[in-house]
Amino acid sequence: MEHTINGQPTADASGQPLQPVIWAGDRLDLLDQRLLPEQIVYLPLTTAEDVWEGIRHLKVRGAPAIGIAAAFGVYLGIRGVEGDTAKVLAEVNRQAGYLATSRPTAVNLFWALDRMKARAEALAGGGEAADAEALKAAMLAEAKQIQAEDEETNRLIGEHALTLLQDGFGVLTHCNAGGLATSKYGTALAPLYLAKERGWDVNVFADETRPVLQGSRLTAFELQQAGIDVTLICDNMAGMVMSKGWVQAVIVGTDRVAANGDVANKIGTYSVAVLAKAHGIPFYVACPMSTIDLGTPTGAEIPIEERSEDEVTQGFGKRTAPHGVKVYNPAFDVTPNEYVTAIITEKGVVTAPYGDHLRKLFG
Amino acid sequence: MEHTINGQPTADASGQPLQPVIWAGDRLDLLDQRLLPEQIVYLPLTTAEDVWEGIRHLKVRGAPAIGIAAAFGVYLGIRGVEGDTAKVLAEVNRQAGYLATSRPTAVNLFWALDRMKARAEALAGGGEAADAEALKAAMLAEAKQIQAEDEETNRLIGEHALTLLQDGFGVLTHCNAGGLATSKYGTALAPLYLAKERGWDVNVFADETRPVLQGSRLTAFELQQAGIDVTLICDNMAGMVMSKGWVQAVIVGTDRVAANGDVANKIGTYSVAVLAKAHGIPFYVACPMSTIDLGTPTGAEIPIEERSEDEVTQGFGKRTAPHGVKVYNPAFDVTPNEYVTAIITEKGVVTAPYGDHLRKLFG
Repeated sequence: MEHTINGQPTADASGQPLQPVIWAGDRLDLLDQRLLPEQIVYLPLTTAEDVWEGIRHLKVRGAPAIGIAAAFGVYLGIRGVEGDTAKVLAEVNRQAGYLATSRPTAVNLFWALDRMKARAEALAGGGEAADAEALKAAMLAEAKQIQAEDEETNRLIGEHALTLLQDGFGVLTHCNAGGLATSKYGTALAPLYLAKERGWDVNVFADETRPVLQGSRLTAFELQQAGIDVTLICDNMAGMVMSKGWVQAVIVGTDRVAANGDVANKIGTYSVAVLAKAHGIPFYVACPMSTIDLGTPTGAEIPIEERSEDEVTQGFGKRTAPHGVKVYNPAFDVTPNEYVTAIITEKGVVTAPYGDHLRKLFG
Repeated sequence: MEHTINGQPTADASGQPLQPVIWAGDRLDLLDQRLLPEQIVYLPLTTAEDVWEGIRHLKVRGAPAIGIAAAFGVYLGIRGVEGDTAKVLAEVNRQAGYLATSRPTAVNLFWALDRMKARAEALAGGGEAADAEALKAAMLAEAKQIQAEDEETNRLIGEHALTLLQDGFGVLTHCNAGGLATSKYGTALAPLYLAKERGWDVNVFADETRPVLQGSRLTAFELQQAGIDVTLICDNMAGMVMSKGWVQAVIVGTDRVAANGDVANKIGTYSVAVLAKAHGIPFYVACPMSTIDLGTPTGAEIPIEERSEDEVTQGFGKRTAPHGVKVYNPAFDVTPNEYVTAIITEKGVVTAPYGDHLRKLFG
């Protein structure tokens, strides 16, 4: 079922996000995100090797989506095994070990694979799986469960975030914290999909998000696909759009929240937060509880990766800056908690003082 | 004298800006700006037709630079004429009329050509030019004078701006208000060249300036050529760079200043101004007196051109956004006067209240 819409993806106005990972009954359909936004191609994966390739070669991206794909990959790797439960259990461990080599630093990948292994061991060791076929079925069920839990987390984030928005709002977002990175809905974009489901009229402004353009390639694309009103802007237009009164809320995702509520996210988030404050616009951060790191006291302790200057000087195959020019290319920045109006998780909405309130959220 | 430095322009550390238009004794050497920053090619122009082509096909850009090239074009068009002063005068008018068709909406172009015609008429009519050769020589002198006056204006802007900077400063700029658009020095970049001449240590941060990337293609290039310390950043990194304490002043050019001190400039300037204010960094605007329009009461009366969405969706030669996505692409924005620390002209530095102080500058 490889289907391609060359060059002209048409919004289906379903209000539903395009899913990056779909279990299709007997195979895994994986959206090849390297081809976005030019082509929508779902690759039919039938083996663990297919999944390994898909993760390794960045056909799937976004930590939750990678973890989900890997979980299904374990099932694809063991479904044809003949033998008893011990044989299947051994193969689960072997396939999980193999899939773990696809992206060596992806935390969600290891987490999902460990969960698959633990489930298999519990069932096989505890004698809960009546036979090998039951164990195989349980592996498929576990992968589906991981996906369903992620979807539920995102839906809850969306529900809580929706209480902060209103019909008719203009919402600005930066980078991509959307359905393409998760099972469905995403984090920052979750309330926008739910708003669409409710028939709300919401206008989204998507920062293109230089240098890698996740905003134009992914956010504008997935919202357009779902029939949500989205307008693409360059990052440097955010201030002007705010000054015109077109934005009633900013909502972004995050890579890590420190214990004091400082927020690390894609470069440019801090500028957006400062601009929002100057215009009296609330600045919201949406994330699962797992992104909040009480072990990191403040944003100052979050290491900021600096990436290749090529992303800035020749990001799209064509050189647009002089050879040898110095480039500063931090991948992330830290937004101090004073700019954060609220942090929205699956367990609810948290406001300042973040030190106390985040601790209580976990307590 | 076509010289090309393919792909590897090396800074000469001279502190001098690369000049877009150079009178080379018997011809005009025109820097082909369409090839920047990949190649430095000076085209040797020997006829008015060469200059017409150069202007029409955007080899030269920037209003002052276009006017200067056209003035020299008049001389190239009449230098071979045989006959008396009346014959030369007629040819001046003919060539000026021809050159005026190269870019139909460029105000500086018409201004420079009118000035050449007026000078020829004054000399020929008043009998000041002894003969045809003297008139021809006067035309070359007038073109040189137009260039020299522009250079002097820019140098004075630079001198005044330099009083606001200090050795060791980090300076952030947006878009290109540099030597490439003028005779030499530019406006916003003029103090940086003068600082270099004095041996000051100044670090410049150049916003790449999406969507057309004048910052990376032109500003980073011309500063690098002059051996000035320049670091290229994406527009969305300006806030982070400011928050690190690396920027002591922002300086930009402008397309039009309203009577109340509101400033229209390249899109993104407003966001930079808001960020500067939030970080307690002065925000300076550099421009010749001719850019201040007392006939425009406020920025609200300045029309903002919206340009093709292609600049945003496929500005790098490769499509990076979904087909059919809505795009907002204003070419300029307006920075309200409350964000402007000072406006710097060839006649001095002006601060708030701008209504009074700009009027006095002209009075």
